Amino acid sequence: MSAARSPGPDGPSGRSPSFGDIAHLGHVELLTPELEASARCFTAVLGLREVGRDATHVYLRGESEYERAGLTLTAAGRAGIGHLGLRTTSGEALARRVEAVTAAGIAGEWLPGGFGHGPAFRFTGPGGHPTELYWETERYVSPEADRPPAKDRLGRRGTAGVDVRRLDHVNLLAADVAAAATLAWSALGATLLDEIVDDVGVMAGAFTTFGQRPLELVYTRDPYGAAGRLHHVAFWVDTREEVLRAADIFVDHGIQIEVAQHTIGRSFFLYGFEPGGNRIEITTGADLVLDPAPVTRTWTAAERRQGVGWGTTFPASWGAYGTPDVRGE
Amino acid sequence: MSAARSPGPDGPSGRSPSFGDIAHLGHVELLTPELEASARCFTAVLGLREVGRDATHVYLRGESEYERAGLTLTAAGRAGIGHLGLRTTSGEALARRVEAVTAAGIAGEWLPGGFGHGPAFRFTGPGGHPTELYWETERYVSPEADRPPAKDRLGRRGTAGVDVRRLDHVNLLAADVAAAATLAWSALGATLLDEIVDDVGVMAGAFTTFGQRPLELVYTRDPYGAAGRLHHVAFWVDTREEVLRAADIFVDHGIQIEVAQHTIGRSFFLYGFEPGGNRIEITTGADLVLDPAPVTRTWTAAERRQGVGWGTTFPASWGAYGTPDVRGE
Amino acid sequence: MSAARSPGPDGPSGRSPSFGDIAHLGHVELLTPELEASARCFTAVLGLREVGRDATHVYLRGESEYERAGLTLTAAGRAGIGHLGLRTTSGEALARRVEAVTAAGIAGEWLPGGFGHGPAFRFTGPGGHPTELYWETERYVSPEADRPPAKDRLGRRGTAGVDVRRLDHVNLLAADVAAAATLAWSALGATLLDEIVDDVGVMAGAFTTFGQRPLELVYTRDPYGAAGRLHHVAFWVDTREEVLRAADIFVDHGIQIEVAQHTIGRSFFLYGFEPGGNRIEITTGADLVLDPAPVTRTWTAAERRQGVGWGTTFPASWGAYGTPDVRGE
Amino acid sequence: MSAARSPGPDGPSGRSPSFGDIAHLGHVELLTPELEASARCFTAVLGLREVGRDATHVYLRGESEYERAGLTLTAAGRAGIGHLGLRTTSGEALARRVEAVTAAGIAGEWLPGGFGHGPAFRFTGPGGHPTELYWETERYVSPEADRPPAKDRLGRRGTAGVDVRRLDHVNLLAADVAAAATLAWSALGATLLDEIVDDVGVMAGAFTTFGQRPLELVYTRDPYGAAGRLHHVAFWVDTREEVLRAADIFVDHGIQIEVAQHTIGRSFFLYGFEPGGNRIEITTGADLVLDPAPVTRTWTAAERRQGVGWGTTFPASWGAYGTPDVRGE
Repeated sequence: MSAARSPGPDGPSGRSPSFGDIAHLGHVELLTPELEASARCFTAVLGLREVGRDATHVYLRGESEYERAGLTLTAAGRAGIGHLGLRTTSGEALARRVEAVTAAGIAGEWLPGGFGHGPAFRFTGPGGHPTELYWETERYVSPEADRPPAKDRLGRRGTAGVDVRRLDHVNLLAADVAAAATLAWSALGATLLDEIVDDVGVMAGAFTTFGQRPLELVYTRDPYGAAGRLHHVAFWVDTREEVLRAADIFVDHGIQIEVAQHTIGRSFFLYGFEPGGNRIEITTGADLVLDPAPVTRTWTAAERRQGVGWGTTFPASWGAYGTPDVRGE
Repeated sequence: MSAARSPGPDGPSGRSPSFGDIAHLGHVELLTPELEASARCFTAVLGLREVGRDATHVYLRGESEYERAGLTLTAAGRAGIGHLGLRTTSGEALARRVEAVTAAGIAGEWLPGGFGHGPAFRFTGPGGHPTELYWETERYVSPEADRPPAKDRLGRRGTAGVDVRRLDHVNLLAADVAAAATLAWSALGATLLDEIVDDVGVMAGAFTTFGQRPLELVYTRDPYGAAGRLHHVAFWVDTREEVLRAADIFVDHGIQIEVAQHTIGRSFFLYGFEPGGNRIEITTGADLVLDPAPVTRTWTAAERRQGVGWGTTFPASWGAYGTPDVRGE
Repeated sequence: MSAARSPGPDGPSGRSPSFGDIAHLGHVELLTPELEASARCFTAVLGLREVGRDATHVYLRGESEYERAGLTLTAAGRAGIGHLGLRTTSGEALARRVEAVTAAGIAGEWLPGGFGHGPAFRFTGPGGHPTELYWETERYVSPEADRPPAKDRLGRRGTAGVDVRRLDHVNLLAADVAAAATLAWSALGATLLDEIVDDVGVMAGAFTTFGQRPLELVYTRDPYGAAGRLHHVAFWVDTREEVLRAADIFVDHGIQIEVAQHTIGRSFFLYGFEPGGNRIEITTGADLVLDPAPVTRTWTAAERRQGVGWGTTFPASWGAYGTPDVRGE
Repeated sequence: MSAARSPGPDGPSGRSPSFGDIAHLGHVELLTPELEASARCFTAVLGLREVGRDATHVYLRGESEYERAGLTLTAAGRAGIGHLGLRTTSGEALARRVEAVTAAGIAGEWLPGGFGHGPAFRFTGPGGHPTELYWETERYVSPEADRPPAKDRLGRRGTAGVDVRRLDHVNLLAADVAAAATLAWSALGATLLDEIVDDVGVMAGAFTTFGQRPLELVYTRDPYGAAGRLHHVAFWVDTREEVLRAADIFVDHGIQIEVAQHTIGRSFFLYGFEPGGNRIEITTGADLVLDPAPVTRTWTAAERRQGVGWGTTFPASWGAYGTPDVRGE
């Protein structure tokens, strides 16, 4: 497990030798048994823009995403995550990461491409989540009607709903968090900024990032030991005021709020459920990680609870619910 | 003129003997040569809700207005103000104010009613602006589809645009500001909270209110000595962040900004022009006037300029432009 | 009890015949067994300014209060409320209210004056809370060093802590809420804007106001049937962002948060405990009551719970704790 | 000059071959003829914390800076910039950058270390600004009294003033912007995200960054062709509301505002002058650059003016004033 602890016994460096090949979390595919209702929620309530659809998929983007689509909704029998996509920093970087994943004993396959991006290497990680690595992408060009005067913004403000900026991070559930974090660190070059260690010293949460944001790919322990489940997917807004406005909009549009806005450090959150059943988060405020060699912060479960800014209490569903929902199975 | 200076020589009381009969500014009728474009701006950009229309009128409301419509748009050859409506605190209060206006030598007429309200006494004030006094009104009931779960709010959040709360105040241009302010104080019971006095001691601006908000009915000097012109009509939002968001939305929707957000005291403003040509304001943050006998603050023109919070400079149009536009006539 | 229900069977008018004689809640005296610690909290954490003190009292003001001191801290054996002060709108109004209180069978006495205000009529209301009515007051003049350039503000921004603006409202506990609300309505001219009625039809909460703010004097049922207890005293800030900042400051300065920021309608709240044990609130965002004849909103206990904006759950202490604390006696 | 244009003729990649060796702008040394007054401004008004001082220096830090001090104030005859420090991502990265700078024909010298950091290679860039590269640094540990409960924050909130988070970026004036940008790109691995090109095709502004923030090291043309001058140094706050609060605090503390808050894209700014004469900026809201190969945006002077969000006009001082001030020499 020490391999997953970026500084570990070996000093202050939090940088993996593979750091720098993965640019960022590029997109997430959500499965939903209620495709139309989910699409309405993500557009009318969250304010994402629809950029494509077919019989079983709806493709959506946040206003400031430079790629074509950060979110794909796919019709399915149960809610959950279809796959996540990670963009590399170059074609060479992609080749290196594919080699590293394969060297780790994980088989994968090359796909000719996906909506808005080029060839992707698809594999299933230790946590059971389909993951794609890709380099070639389509830079989004706004249609004239949606183009703002400022050439450094892609979309216009004032559309309906929360008007989220972009996909921010994804929190996956894994039976073995350390194994998932180890691959992220060793093969993908992720930085482990925060980890939660349970009372018997086993890693229960791993918050990893590929750049200067504090988290992009998060693994927390699956209470049911299931494979490939999703805890939540998060979208970014610019200010805390927008998160409060989002809470008002959720309530006024019948989107159930699970945890009203709360804080950790300077991050600020709101959680609810989209009609398909997947947990969604609206977030802002995180400090950037400027330190090139950050020391991993290790939290005990108790510290983590205390560290939740204002002493906000979480409902039981927070620990038990994920998609697909396996309670009672 | 001293009658209009609530404290004047006669001590600290800012209360007119007639205070308490006018409840608040109820509605404003704007004239526009571009009815459809204006209606689109007030709905898609400002976020007002349309509650009625006919061939030459569009009736609009802010989400938190308890009456049916705070704004009426009327097709006309030139931009300007059609009339303003002031609601009284009772039927008896209405009778008293009508008697006082008439006693002041101003003729008026009774109208059977207007959109969303009952019988109104209509007269033209010293500044040349048609003004209606009324008591009976229609309390707005949201259609089921627009009703939020909280019974203490009327509409749902997250609609398009700025999502302004309500009509806030109106700023009229008058050739003789003191005369207009005198009638407001003596016959309508308005409190004069702030006044601007020019270098030769003549009142150039009068900020009057009927309740605890710092301004509802404002008169500033018409640089052309014309009658019945409008400087601007203002709409309220809850936070400064919403004013900034409004500025972004104005730019992204082609609404010209005349003065970017600035401040006076704790009030925070943004000014632009709706397609019909009328100047509109988005405002928030004003301190409430809890003092029942406020001492009128007298500002010299120089103090007023300095008092404009952050030293924001105003364009020449601010002083010269009103609707209808009489420049070059 | 119907007298306390402003609309009651007798139609839409929410105005008491006595409306208009009380201007606003003027000041609150808090009792504390930890005078110095309480004073430090209200200055360093809340940002109130100290304007006077003696061996057993510390006098404090919010930056935008026009009177000299909105809060008095008094050394005492137990936490609680010493008295509350209500300012009238004139000397005649004061005489009328004193007559009405006396006519209601409540004895009182005249005090020569208090810190920053003139003669006051002191009586103990049905809930057992000492209450003072006064007209003459001292308008605060900032010392040169604390004077901002804008003449329409009293203090400078950027002092330590939350920098609250002013005293906002007080929530008292009463064994018989209806009796307390009845006197407020009939003798003091308070408007009853919201009421909570329990499952057997008895008034459990009364939210009354003297002007356009939605609440100033609130009575909720004392779970122990005790007399003269305080639930909380609230202070105003201008934006929701400032409430969030207040929560951060509370945590960083060891002020226990009881209920993290939540919402009702558009009001936004944060509750904690000052070192003396009294519950304090930071609040903002309430809609103004412009309607001169508001219909009282009657909430069932169930509706009230549902109406609490985002489904925020309250800890047991919320219902059980007041000052002085009588649990276990 | 094309070397400075990251995409240039050679396709979409904005990444320099040297990208990744410089972690971030680490610190700035400001020269001031008013050391004490400047120190008071940066602590009482901006809210920086003093972490050290001697007869001619005051060392300051923003609450969220992981290094010991982001700002040094040095007593001097004239205002200006003493030097800027750039932290590398490793010791090897430092060696590579020193070799690249030397290879570019720029001489430098090794310094044993500086306040809070280890050995530094100091050289003077094409623009005439002393620049230090260093790897070893001292991670700041808060004194117990200033430590917040959350272990992922370094300082407590609620201190006086603006309470800025950290140093954000520095804008230097250069006679030859292209030469300065070329070295930043080729030898330091900076990404050129935005450039301003004047009417005759010469680079007049270069906005470069070392990570995912849109700007860290900015060069704009010196109108006097002087060497080593500073345009401004910027500090970060978390929200736009905090920038507005900063404007209020500036005014209330006598800090002259040059340009009231305005916007470009989603960045939000406020500019003023510290007592020593240096221009300071409070900023927030910038979009992160997630694209690993961003295409440089080329702005004409005209576009840049139009691109300034809300049409805010800039005073003449903006273009003419820098420190030291050479006007009239």
